[in-house]
Amino acid sequence: MTRKGEQYDGAFDLESLESSLCSGDRRALARAITLIESKRADHQAQGTELLERLYPKSGHAFRLAVTGAPGVGKSTLIEALGLHLVDLGYRPAVLAIDPSSSNTGGALLGDKTRMEVLSRSESAFIRPSPSGDAVGGVAPRTREAMLLCEASGFDPIIVETVGVGQTETAVAELADSVLLLLAPGGGDELQGLKRGIVELADFVLINKADGRTKSTANILAADYSAALSILGRANDEERVQVQTCSALEGEGVAEAWRVIEQNMQYFVDSGERVMARANQARQWFWIEVKELLSSDIAQESALAIVMSELENDVAKGKLLPVVAARRLLKEYRAAHKLG
Amino acid sequence: MTRKGEQYDGAFDLESLESSLCSGDRRALARAITLIESKRADHQAQGTELLERLYPKSGHAFRLAVTGAPGVGKSTLIEALGLHLVDLGYRPAVLAIDPSSSNTGGALLGDKTRMEVLSRSESAFIRPSPSGDAVGGVAPRTREAMLLCEASGFDPIIVETVGVGQTETAVAELADSVLLLLAPGGGDELQGLKRGIVELADFVLINKADGRTKSTANILAADYSAALSILGRANDEERVQVQTCSALEGEGVAEAWRVIEQNMQYFVDSGERVMARANQARQWFWIEVKELLSSDIAQESALAIVMSELENDVAKGKLLPVVAARRLLKEYRAAHKLG
Repeated sequence: MTRKGEQYDGAFDLESLESSLCSGDRRALARAITLIESKRADHQAQGTELLERLYPKSGHAFRLAVTGAPGVGKSTLIEALGLHLVDLGYRPAVLAIDPSSSNTGGALLGDKTRMEVLSRSESAFIRPSPSGDAVGGVAPRTREAMLLCEASGFDPIIVETVGVGQTETAVAELADSVLLLLAPGGGDELQGLKRGIVELADFVLINKADGRTKSTANILAADYSAALSILGRANDEERVQVQTCSALEGEGVAEAWRVIEQNMQYFVDSGERVMARANQARQWFWIEVKELLSSDIAQESALAIVMSELENDVAKGKLLPVVAARRLLKEYRAAHKLG
Repeated sequence: MTRKGEQYDGAFDLESLESSLCSGDRRALARAITLIESKRADHQAQGTELLERLYPKSGHAFRLAVTGAPGVGKSTLIEALGLHLVDLGYRPAVLAIDPSSSNTGGALLGDKTRMEVLSRSESAFIRPSPSGDAVGGVAPRTREAMLLCEASGFDPIIVETVGVGQTETAVAELADSVLLLLAPGGGDELQGLKRGIVELADFVLINKADGRTKSTANILAADYSAALSILGRANDEERVQVQTCSALEGEGVAEAWRVIEQNMQYFVDSGERVMARANQARQWFWIEVKELLSSDIAQESALAIVMSELENDVAKGKLLPVVAARRLLKEYRAAHKLG
């Protein structure tokens, strides 16, 4: 017997998993995410099969990324927003990257998160994922987990990202819209955030507009609004809005959602979403080609050594990248000619 | 006989090309760039060989990207900056992407550019490149051309980019420092510029601080400076500076160079440049793997059709990217098993 079906270690019954997941069963969804996050080869094959089956049922949800430095209140905001969405009749899914938990495969955390009230709602699904060795603050399988949530009928999908590393690219390849959360902090609101993240935001929300920080939050919002309108483009439709909220007290959350919804509507109506998603898919394709090539290579120790030597020599400036790339592909083909 | 040796259509004598290039011969350098920009298979092989030979001699120059919307005066500024650098004893090379000239292979343009005064200087090298089908406003072979300029003893290398498309990534993978050039334009200074480009800049220069636009240029500079300090990080060393100049009258160009030089010095002294270049090289490696894979595939018509179908299905959301990627690699291996 396994705890909540999460630590099941054998093969998965895909047919039953698929039908339970599609009926909106949150435990089935959690197990499916565990499957796709598994590093076991048989699980990976099953995970891909499951994703392939469910892919036509995904893609209909709105995908919102919430980014911001640690301590600004991302979890509190997402919980407040999630509860508001449940009130409105939505079924939000939250995929939270948990930087504190690497290498647990996500399984040990189960449904235990910081968003306790939201996690008790039947209409919501919350999944903390280990950040692992993710490049870009998005867990390695967040994209796939998002598709599973969509197939399970959840909408919107809220992805919490840590806002460090090469987040901008990863987030842009994943979300329809990016919300940047800031909080008053004595002038270093952006400390630790990757450069470029501000410009990536579709919407800036200043948290902690409550108690002693209320006035500084308002000042920060006014400053940001002015700064963004100077740096922003002339096109009004692309102007980034700035609002304040108190995630703790639930103030300003409904107003924030209204802006997000408007942006989303424009994004859909203008046809931009179709284009953006086609581009994301194309990028994803080439990322997967790279990943598969790397993992094919990693599975053959001789080849793996060659690849790491080539990469090292390239990084040190000893070897021209195009020459290294040619050698890598040559070795790859040679290895598979024999195999 | 070929005009300036640029349209030479046979095989290149690599040994003599290499030694002339290394002695600083600008015609040899121009021919070498023509070689690496050539689409002919034999030229490409020779180009790679030449690059491989010269690679150890490259990498010592400072690499500056100059970006900005059309009409802000990029060419005028680069010419003024180049002349100032020549006065200081430098040997600057300018690689200018010319969006108006696609498919000429760079050969037809020769040394004819808009920077007429600078192009007459013995110490400078100017090379317009066709933007072709470049992704990111950087011509396909700009990176390689940069290495050739370095091996030929030019320093700094100034790369003019058009500031549209996915420039941010391409520029970040190429330059040590990014200068964003703006000019007063009635509130739409950033019109047409790719989002994110402002945050990517290490230094913002407001051009046309002369005549009737002088006061608006100064206001723009003050606004930008304020906006960037609000949006910028707290760390003083990373604060982006804003200055004004008149490229036309040569005013403020020496001052701009002083800031660029300081930034560069910090970048080198702090060890950041070594790390940044190692990352750039690693990224470049994987870009080349993708390029080679694509070109291997394109050379076999059956495979090329499969790839384009896979990419289309992925873009339309019909096919899971990981599945498409797996099929592509499978077909690739199968084709090379026979070949």
